[in-house]
Amino acid sequence: MKYCSSCGSKVELKVPQDDHFPRYCCTNCDAIHYQNPNIVTGTIPIMKDRILLCKRAIHPRPGMWTLPAGFLENGETIGQGAFRETLEETNTEVKMGNLYAIFNIPQISQVYMLFFAEVLREDFGETPESLEVKLFKEEEIPWQELAFPFVPIVLKNYFADRKDNKFDLKVETIERPVKKTNQ
Amino acid sequence: MKYCSSCGSKVELKVPQDDHFPRYCCTNCDAIHYQNPNIVTGTIPIMKDRILLCKRAIHPRPGMWTLPAGFLENGETIGQGAFRETLEETNTEVKMGNLYAIFNIPQISQVYMLFFAEVLREDFGETPESLEVKLFKEEEIPWQELAFPFVPIVLKNYFADRKDNKFDLKVETIERPVKKTNQ
Repeated sequence: MKYCSSCGSKVELKVPQDDHFPRYCCTNCDAIHYQNPNIVTGTIPIMKDRILLCKRAIHPRPGMWTLPAGFLENGETIGQGAFRETLEETNTEVKMGNLYAIFNIPQISQVYMLFFAEVLREDFGETPESLEVKLFKEEEIPWQELAFPFVPIVLKNYFADRKDNKFDLKVETIERPVKKTNQ
Repeated sequence: MKYCSSCGSKVELKVPQDDHFPRYCCTNCDAIHYQNPNIVTGTIPIMKDRILLCKRAIHPRPGMWTLPAGFLENGETIGQGAFRETLEETNTEVKMGNLYAIFNIPQISQVYMLFFAEVLREDFGETPESLEVKLFKEEEIPWQELAFPFVPIVLKNYFADRKDNKFDLKVETIERPVKKTNQ
């Protein structure tokens, strides 16, 4: 951020009065521009003993498999956003279930929220965002081709919980691997 | 938003290619400026049979009582943010517990996340954000002086659940009252 989105003047990074964090502050109109984490909302779409996964058509990680999820939009509830993202990525309207997992990813300032969803019809299929959409049994999951760290974590939790038929909410933090230097 | 925060040129509101929603798009450098919901994170601070509430020193709703909560900051987990906000508003370091309630407030594009917390010491007190910080038994809660709709909802849920000693996660949507016109 270099310019004020209200008046177009230059901004500077400083801690405003009565605040605890540096913010982009306009040098002309005194507007303060806050930057805060984003919510990524999605589903674990289930049909009997199979999970619906999407092969990504778009960046990041094209060609890799993921659970349907994306950024929550203004005016939506987290459940509405998860339903919409699932429809956009799988082309099917799921029946929404309970919230199952929350993942903090503080290094990229994102919070993931994953709901259970029931796949009601076999009308799912490719979309502009997914090259392929397919149901997988546990032994068929393409573990080496999953797009993001949250996907194997939530799938492993689900398959473990399924043995006991007890699906308590998970709240976890995913640390991204830090690239090592030669020091 | 009127100006591009990257280059300072004028923005226009339009649906970018391959998108579903209108965004502020720069007319010069083609930057797209997304605006998404914010997370408000906080606690229900408990000491035995009493709840710690804060009398707000700042806008909005100065003089009204609330549970400690505020905007999640970049780089924080929701639990870290809830701990920090509780310290800022009550001056005491709580012991964090489980996530208990999530409230969607889609009309203002906010998602509230409230954790249980144990008040360990009686070192709480006023802060720059709170005129007064005080423990309340159920029958002492100032129901008519609570600052925000989520406060009575979470307190009533908690007192009801306390009778059964069973505290399942609540996921609810708060609709703000729409001001009626004469039509």
